[in-house]
Amino acid sequence: MTAFVNQQLLLASRPAGEPTPTNFRLVETPVPELGDGQVLVRHHYLSLDPYMRGRMNDGKSYAAPQALDQVMIGGTVGEVVVSKNPAFLAGDKVVGWGGWQQYSIVDAAPAAAGALQTVDASRIPLSAYLGVVGMPGVTAWYGLIKIIGPQAGETVVVSAASGAVGGVVGQLAKARGARAVGLAGGPDKCHYVVEELGFDACIDYKQHPDLKSLSAALKEACPNGIDGYFENVGGMILDAVMFRANAFSRIAMCGMISGYNGQPIPMLAPQLILVNRMKVEGFIVSEHMELWSEALRELGGLVATGKLKYRETVADGLASAPEAFIGLLKGRNFGKQLVKLI
Amino acid sequence: MTAFVNQQLLLASRPAGEPTPTNFRLVETPVPELGDGQVLVRHHYLSLDPYMRGRMNDGKSYAAPQALDQVMIGGTVGEVVVSKNPAFLAGDKVVGWGGWQQYSIVDAAPAAAGALQTVDASRIPLSAYLGVVGMPGVTAWYGLIKIIGPQAGETVVVSAASGAVGGVVGQLAKARGARAVGLAGGPDKCHYVVEELGFDACIDYKQHPDLKSLSAALKEACPNGIDGYFENVGGMILDAVMFRANAFSRIAMCGMISGYNGQPIPMLAPQLILVNRMKVEGFIVSEHMELWSEALRELGGLVATGKLKYRETVADGLASAPEAFIGLLKGRNFGKQLVKLI
Repeated sequence: MTAFVNQQLLLASRPAGEPTPTNFRLVETPVPELGDGQVLVRHHYLSLDPYMRGRMNDGKSYAAPQALDQVMIGGTVGEVVVSKNPAFLAGDKVVGWGGWQQYSIVDAAPAAAGALQTVDASRIPLSAYLGVVGMPGVTAWYGLIKIIGPQAGETVVVSAASGAVGGVVGQLAKARGARAVGLAGGPDKCHYVVEELGFDACIDYKQHPDLKSLSAALKEACPNGIDGYFENVGGMILDAVMFRANAFSRIAMCGMISGYNGQPIPMLAPQLILVNRMKVEGFIVSEHMELWSEALRELGGLVATGKLKYRETVADGLASAPEAFIGLLKGRNFGKQLVKLI
Repeated sequence: MTAFVNQQLLLASRPAGEPTPTNFRLVETPVPELGDGQVLVRHHYLSLDPYMRGRMNDGKSYAAPQALDQVMIGGTVGEVVVSKNPAFLAGDKVVGWGGWQQYSIVDAAPAAAGALQTVDASRIPLSAYLGVVGMPGVTAWYGLIKIIGPQAGETVVVSAASGAVGGVVGQLAKARGARAVGLAGGPDKCHYVVEELGFDACIDYKQHPDLKSLSAALKEACPNGIDGYFENVGGMILDAVMFRANAFSRIAMCGMISGYNGQPIPMLAPQLILVNRMKVEGFIVSEHMELWSEALRELGGLVATGKLKYRETVADGLASAPEAFIGLLKGRNFGKQLVKLI
């Protein structure tokens, strides 16, 4: 055993509907000795992301379910504290898939799924590697660039616009000459989306409880209709967007958080896909690893030069992760949701 | 005036729900003298197609509505009877957009929307230019080849499989090494789809009144899941297919006949587009004219050599067109629905 003690959060039970704190269990485990080639990482930040809700279920999905009584999966950034691998030195800043715990031991073989990557934290804050310069940023980049493919003068709409993914979608769309319109919950988030992130407009969906009202708001914000939609939410917002979609519009299906707890979320008028010759495409960013370096190069450059803005909501300490995650699913976060571990 | 009298069917009123014979009006009109460059065509066959139902509505769609008190639009094949255009001779067999009438006068300028094309009726029956070697055939070709892109060993499903479009989809899919599974209404059509057209299986959807039953039938007919779906119908069939769709499957949205009379036809589980990283794409074949010659070359070659099979339901005389069209919308036709005019 090493001298280190590791706090860990395990999946204790699968949620029926909304997750509750009792679905998680906090334990303390001594950190074992490292074997040859292994690296001990102390996590500075844990990333909380909507996709984790899907993993808590046992049903068929694109990824294996999170196993019960195991450490919850998740992206982490941190620092190498002990290395028995020549590719890493103590003190290296690293990004990886350490999970909901304070420390992780990584078999740092290059091809390992949880492979660790050294990052440069001198020009980009370490936490950004979990957000705009990490998985959420690449998600935004892939869906916008590779599926929507916005042209100058087109209108791109994104739901959850103040979030880690949505904020990047709109800023990249603007950089390509498109009109960017966000949907977010509440006046503070909408103000931020327009004033800080530079979107052309943002609709507070909480002010529009029915389809008719939301459609009218979209009509006003998108006078030339909608050419691209980046979907993080699903449900009524998707329907309202489809009723304003232009011919040859494209929808990148990235998330459907409104259905993550098992509610049915039918699409009201799929015939619009035909009438408007739309393309609707789902994607999982981890299946397009060949494009990550291109995406991260653009995103990292924009962050380092201050051109790509973002915001973080930081919960303090591992024990706060379950409540922060539940809040994320309810839209209580503002920007990228992180848990600070040191 | 010429000596010719032209029977014509006009759109008399817009249907509320299902069309009825009273939505049409039969009139007789003398054929005027031809101007320079014009051609008088006597129609042999009129094509009846599901898209015409959409044109009868006044709502927003991809094409302008059919005007009231005007001749119903539609594809026709026939023979030039008088020509004041050097590019055409009396006796030429031609395909064009003559509408629901016995004769049409065409300004045969090459770029005109209703431009007339001379066809070779020596190796291919004239009527086939309205079906497998015409718009329905190219529709099947485009959706299958350009959107679904079937690979050998994959499974392709098509609804309305005994119809003018569906029959071609399955035969082209087979020719590319895919498993072809049809859906059709009734044992006769299913027998034809498998025994005559060579599909691997065909499901009689009338035997499966609910989603559970239809899903079970699809599971049996598609033991390896569904990789491509060519959609002519919408509604419950689309839902059932989506529940059996594989990762990275593609849906070509060609028609949604189940919603043409205005019924809501929601898609039950759009989140499957995300979970299975599907692509769902609508298309209108007339927007891809640049591919027609490639498609028609393949289709014409297959018909001339007897490798592409098809069937026609032929109504007799212009006055029978309204009832034949109403029957088409209810699936009463068997293969391509035509009206024989001489």
